[in-house]
Amino acid sequence: MKIKIAQDKLARSLNNVSRIAGGKASLPILSNVLIRVDDNKVSLVTTNLDMAVVSYLPSVGSENGVVTVPAKLMAEFVGNLPRGERVDLEADDTKVTIKAGGYSSCVNGASAEDFPELPEIDEEKVVKFKIGVEDFKTGLSQVMVAVSNDTTRPALTGVYFNTFENGLYLAATDGYRLAERKLIDKVQAEVMAIVPAASLRSVLALIGDDVQEIEILFDDSQVRFRLGDVEVTSKLVDGSFPDYRQLIPKETEIKVTLPRDELVRITKLAALFAREVGGSIVCETNVENGVFSVASVANELGENKSEIKTEVETDGKVTLNSRFLLDVLNILGGKKVDFGFSNKLDPVMLNGDKDTDYTHIIMPLKG
Amino acid sequence: MKIKIAQDKLARSLNNVSRIAGGKASLPILSNVLIRVDDNKVSLVTTNLDMAVVSYLPSVGSENGVVTVPAKLMAEFVGNLPRGERVDLEADDTKVTIKAGGYSSCVNGASAEDFPELPEIDEEKVVKFKIGVEDFKTGLSQVMVAVSNDTTRPALTGVYFNTFENGLYLAATDGYRLAERKLIDKVQAEVMAIVPAASLRSVLALIGDDVQEIEILFDDSQVRFRLGDVEVTSKLVDGSFPDYRQLIPKETEIKVTLPRDELVRITKLAALFAREVGGSIVCETNVENGVFSVASVANELGENKSEIKTEVETDGKVTLNSRFLLDVLNILGGKKVDFGFSNKLDPVMLNGDKDTDYTHIIMPLKG
Repeated sequence: MKIKIAQDKLARSLNNVSRIAGGKASLPILSNVLIRVDDNKVSLVTTNLDMAVVSYLPSVGSENGVVTVPAKLMAEFVGNLPRGERVDLEADDTKVTIKAGGYSSCVNGASAEDFPELPEIDEEKVVKFKIGVEDFKTGLSQVMVAVSNDTTRPALTGVYFNTFENGLYLAATDGYRLAERKLIDKVQAEVMAIVPAASLRSVLALIGDDVQEIEILFDDSQVRFRLGDVEVTSKLVDGSFPDYRQLIPKETEIKVTLPRDELVRITKLAALFAREVGGSIVCETNVENGVFSVASVANELGENKSEIKTEVETDGKVTLNSRFLLDVLNILGGKKVDFGFSNKLDPVMLNGDKDTDYTHIIMPLKG
Repeated sequence: MKIKIAQDKLARSLNNVSRIAGGKASLPILSNVLIRVDDNKVSLVTTNLDMAVVSYLPSVGSENGVVTVPAKLMAEFVGNLPRGERVDLEADDTKVTIKAGGYSSCVNGASAEDFPELPEIDEEKVVKFKIGVEDFKTGLSQVMVAVSNDTTRPALTGVYFNTFENGLYLAATDGYRLAERKLIDKVQAEVMAIVPAASLRSVLALIGDDVQEIEILFDDSQVRFRLGDVEVTSKLVDGSFPDYRQLIPKETEIKVTLPRDELVRITKLAALFAREVGGSIVCETNVENGVFSVASVANELGENKSEIKTEVETDGKVTLNSRFLLDVLNILGGKKVDFGFSNKLDPVMLNGDKDTDYTHIIMPLKG
């Protein structure tokens, strides 16, 4: 195997694929990147068994072959070579020589035979979506916040891609809050698939500046994200996502409109005092004084109450986890926020003034 | 106790002093900041028993008194209040009420009686130095890199402030390398004192933008750094610093001048391969080829050798810890570096082209 390639291109590709390499100490070959040359097309591949990343590169004057070498070492080595040098890679069995200008190294690799088989997707039999990169990034980050870390409920550890009334939706819930985002308005195909949050974080990290559009391909058990010259293929989460639409209230009994930055500030102040009580804060409307207030429950540290003057039609009170409230306020952006709630145990609904395709509810704590 | 004070001033002071609060879980009162008002002068004090930080603030219309409250909570609370608000603090026994605009909190504090006694320094009986803040920061950071973490040799865990031939010098060594910096050219007083690195790191972090000059006061067992309105008082390390001047070679047998950025690059490349051998790299001069080379020792990962063309008069070879070499190259700055060494076990001496008041030697590894 021989490759001649510009340092910056190779460095970028190695950097991309090496991110997921080496997560599993029990299988050392997973620390390696597989380098394959086939008719002047170079592909670099890493996998952690749950997902695989492939980066494609052109290389004129190459010789076919395949080898694996330690991914992070290779990425750092090539990354430290002078920018713009031509890099020559040559494999002699599993020894790979790297030369660039006055620099020369010999890396001990391993045979490609020991590298795990890569997931295949039959592209004829898949459901396909295309989406602009900014819409994808925004939509995904708005729901990822609600993904659960609880591996005993695997279905909640991913983002649910689902079609409903001709739209493609993303949804996530950890049982305490739920976020939903309409991603594409009109789609032909249908899908119901839970994509692991870990794979989606890798996808987000791998979107380069040159990527404008993302292709998403689903088969029954896998998803592939095509990001320009990089492809991420991941297993889907095996399980069924809760029927979440029934949880979203159509209306709430009480609704107040608040300046978002003020609400952020008084929530933060109350949260400081709420550390010893699991972040629990009390949100209250008071018609007589025309205020919305956030208070922390008195405890060892002390207590705190702050108010915002606003139009209030009904008295009400609800106890929330301050972190969940801060998370959604952060996502909503914009100047105003609608804070809607009913009685103590019904979901609290947060809406911004910018994005009607986004829904976020928080389950109250027992006050 | 009553204080009226601008939010930004109080926030900055609280932020400063709260850095060292709460390090020792065994003594909860150390998480608190002591707030004292005396004739419209407010002082905020924290201590971790090894050192104390005091921040002074003016406050018109205050009422005398003293109390302690959780430092980090207080700092975060005041930091989150709207910028520029006037903050009113009022203590009723150990309960402290904080009000600012529509915000109100009550923090549970503790009696000042339980707060440790603060170190006293008799300012009549001290040795004093004054130094410009930039010189101090630069000089200190140039030697701190060589401070030891090994608490079994306490004398090496600090920076040695010492006067020699009318100059004030800083020195530090971890037994593997030594850094020395002349800090002030001509001083009258004499000092030999080891200041704990932890205290110096706090001092560096506490130097505000408004500080131009630093006053350093030594008595027999303590040092005080006066940084504008902030004072840091620290115990000295009890022990004697090695007689390090005899370790610094007057001359080295071999000396090559190298472009610093190139030397950094080839050291980094070799270091990547040297991870499994404790960072050990081999530096070599070769008269015949007119090169200085850096190589890693062949091991499981592979091997690496890179060269720089340069004038060489003598063949030689020395084995070093790559991290130590990178550390000093980083400190030296400038375009050129003199790399001097003698035989395998004599110290390697690094000099930059910018700073003749700085000395750095590295002990070789057994090659």
